[in-house]
Amino acid sequence: MGNWNTEHLLEKIQTYIGKLSAVREPKGLYDPIVYILSLGGKRLRPMLMLQAYNLYKDDVDSILSQAVAIETYHNFTLLHDDLMDQADVRRNKPTVHKMWNMNTAILSGDAMLIESYHYMMQNCPSEYVQQVMSTFSEAALEVCEGQQYDMDFEKRMDVTVNEYIEMIRLKTSVLLAAALKIGAILGGASSEDIQALYDFGIKMGLAFQLQDDYLDVYGDSSFFGKKIGGDILCNKKTYMLITTLEKVKGTELEQELHYWLSLEHFVPKEKVDSVTSIYNKVGIADICRKKIDEYYTEGLRLLDKIQADSVRKEQLKSYVCGLVNRKL
Amino acid sequence: MGNWNTEHLLEKIQTYIGKLSAVREPKGLYDPIVYILSLGGKRLRPMLMLQAYNLYKDDVDSILSQAVAIETYHNFTLLHDDLMDQADVRRNKPTVHKMWNMNTAILSGDAMLIESYHYMMQNCPSEYVQQVMSTFSEAALEVCEGQQYDMDFEKRMDVTVNEYIEMIRLKTSVLLAAALKIGAILGGASSEDIQALYDFGIKMGLAFQLQDDYLDVYGDSSFFGKKIGGDILCNKKTYMLITTLEKVKGTELEQELHYWLSLEHFVPKEKVDSVTSIYNKVGIADICRKKIDEYYTEGLRLLDKIQADSVRKEQLKSYVCGLVNRKL
Repeated sequence: MGNWNTEHLLEKIQTYIGKLSAVREPKGLYDPIVYILSLGGKRLRPMLMLQAYNLYKDDVDSILSQAVAIETYHNFTLLHDDLMDQADVRRNKPTVHKMWNMNTAILSGDAMLIESYHYMMQNCPSEYVQQVMSTFSEAALEVCEGQQYDMDFEKRMDVTVNEYIEMIRLKTSVLLAAALKIGAILGGASSEDIQALYDFGIKMGLAFQLQDDYLDVYGDSSFFGKKIGGDILCNKKTYMLITTLEKVKGTELEQELHYWLSLEHFVPKEKVDSVTSIYNKVGIADICRKKIDEYYTEGLRLLDKIQADSVRKEQLKSYVCGLVNRKL
Repeated sequence: MGNWNTEHLLEKIQTYIGKLSAVREPKGLYDPIVYILSLGGKRLRPMLMLQAYNLYKDDVDSILSQAVAIETYHNFTLLHDDLMDQADVRRNKPTVHKMWNMNTAILSGDAMLIESYHYMMQNCPSEYVQQVMSTFSEAALEVCEGQQYDMDFEKRMDVTVNEYIEMIRLKTSVLLAAALKIGAILGGASSEDIQALYDFGIKMGLAFQLQDDYLDVYGDSSFFGKKIGGDILCNKKTYMLITTLEKVKGTELEQELHYWLSLEHFVPKEKVDSVTSIYNKVGIADICRKKIDEYYTEGLRLLDKIQADSVRKEQLKSYVCGLVNRKL
C-alpha cells in the first residue's frame, strides 16, 4: 500500500492483462487480440495513469481496468496502423494482418476498440465517469486525426514544422496526456493539477516523438534493433527533414537534398549516408536535441507545479527521465 | 409533446444527424463519415430506441444523442463490413473504400466507432450510464462476433440451422434489441419490461433477417432494386440453403444441389434458376415464411406483456408490422 514503485506497477498491469485471456468466442476474433497484447512493450500509458493516480491515492488496483483500457486502445491503434502502413513486423513478430489476414486485422481491431471502452467504463466511479469518458473519447478521436494528417503529409512536400508538431501532438502526445489526466481525475486531483499533468504529458509526448525521429538517424542500431535511416528511405517528413529543408533553402545543398528525395530507385545505404551528411552539414542533430530538451524542461516545470507528495512526484519524474535518457 | 408519431420521430432523427456535420478537421477523416450517414436508410435502430423510450416518457428529444449514437455505430459496421466484403455499392452509391480508399475506410470507420461512444455518453443521466454503456458495449462486441461467424461460415459446408440463427442473432438482432433496451432503460422502465423489449427486438431481428434471405430469392427485384439470387450465386449459407441441404439429404436432389454449389464457373441466371427450382421442390418458401411468422408472433406476444400505455404499444407494433408486411 501507499507509494508503489514502478516495477510493482508494471507487474500489476502485466498480471491484469494476462487474466483478460479470451474466454469469449469465436477464436478467430479474439486470438489476434490476445496475440497483440502479449507482444509486450513498455506499457507506458497505463504506467503513467497509475502513477498519476498514485500522486493522490494509494489503491492503484481500483483503476487497473482503466489503465488496461488505455493500453488496449493503444494496441488497437498499432493493429490498424500496421495494416494501413502495410508493416510486416511489430516488436520482432509478424503483424496481425500478416499472421492472419486483412479482414481479421480490421474486425479484431474493431473489437479491441470496443473492449477498450468497456474496460474504461468498468467500475468507473459515477462522479468521474463523464469526465473520464469524454477525456478518453476526445483523445481517441484526436489520435485518428493525427494518423490522418500523417497519411496526408506523405503526399505533401510543403509540410511546416508547426504542422508536423501538431500532427505528432495528436498522434502521440494526447494519449499519454489523457492517461495522466484520467489517472489524476480518478485520484480526485484539483482541476489545476489535472490540467498540468495533461500538459506535462503533451510536452513529454513531443519530446519522445522527436527523440524517435532523432534515433532513427543517430541511434545505435545494435542497441535498438531497428534499422537506421528508415524515415530517410521513405522521405518521412520528420522534424529533422522539415527543418533541414528550411535551412538549406537557397543553398547548393537544397538541390542535393531534393535530388535524393526525388530518386525513385537508389541504393539504400547511399541515400541514408548522403541525406545524413546533409543533416550533419546543417547541424540538425544539435537543433533536434535542443528542441527535445526544450519540451522536456517545459514538461518537468509543469510537473513541479503540482500539489502532491514530493517523493511521488520525484518517482514519476525519474520514470519519465529514464525513458528519455535511456535512449539519447 | 406526449405520444410522438413515427414521421415526427424520423424527422427529429434526420435533423439531428444533419446538424452533426463535420466541424472538425481533417476533412479526409470526417467527410466519409458525413457521406455514409447521409446515404439514408430507415433509421430503424434510433426509431426503435425513441419509441421504446416514448412508451414511458414524453421528452424524446432528451435522448436524441443516444439514438443517433446507435445509428452511427450501425453505419460504422456497414462501412467496415463493405470493406471486408469488398462491396462496391451501398444504397445505390459507391461504398467509402471505392469513393476514397481502403485506409480511409479503416480510419474513418474507427473514428465513427469512437463518435458513437461519445454520443452515447453525451448527457446520459448518471443513474443509467453504467447500464446503458454496458448494454451498448455488449451489443457492439456481439455484432463483431456475428460478423466473424459470418466470415467463418463462408469456408464451411456443415453450418447447422442453429449456428446460422445464432450468427444472425449476433450480427443483426442484438443491436435492434439493444436499441429498444437502451430506450427502455432511459425511460425508467421496470427490469421486466426492459428484458421483454430486448427479447422482442431479438425475435424481430431474426424475422427481419430471414425475410431478407427470403426476398433475395422470392422478392420483386423491380420493387427492391436489389438483384435477385445474390445469396445463391455466392453459396451464402442462409436459413433456406441450410434447411434445403438437410431436406434433400439422401435424395437425388442432393447431388444436383451440390453440383451447383461446387461449380466454379456458371451462367448466373442458370444457377439461380436451378437452385430456386430445388428450393421450390422442397417447399422452402413456405417453410421460411412459417419460421418468420413464428418469430414475429413470439415477438408480438412479448410486446403485449409490457406495462405501458396501450396506444403507444399499438404504435410500436404497427411500426414493426409495417416493416415486416411491406416486404413480404
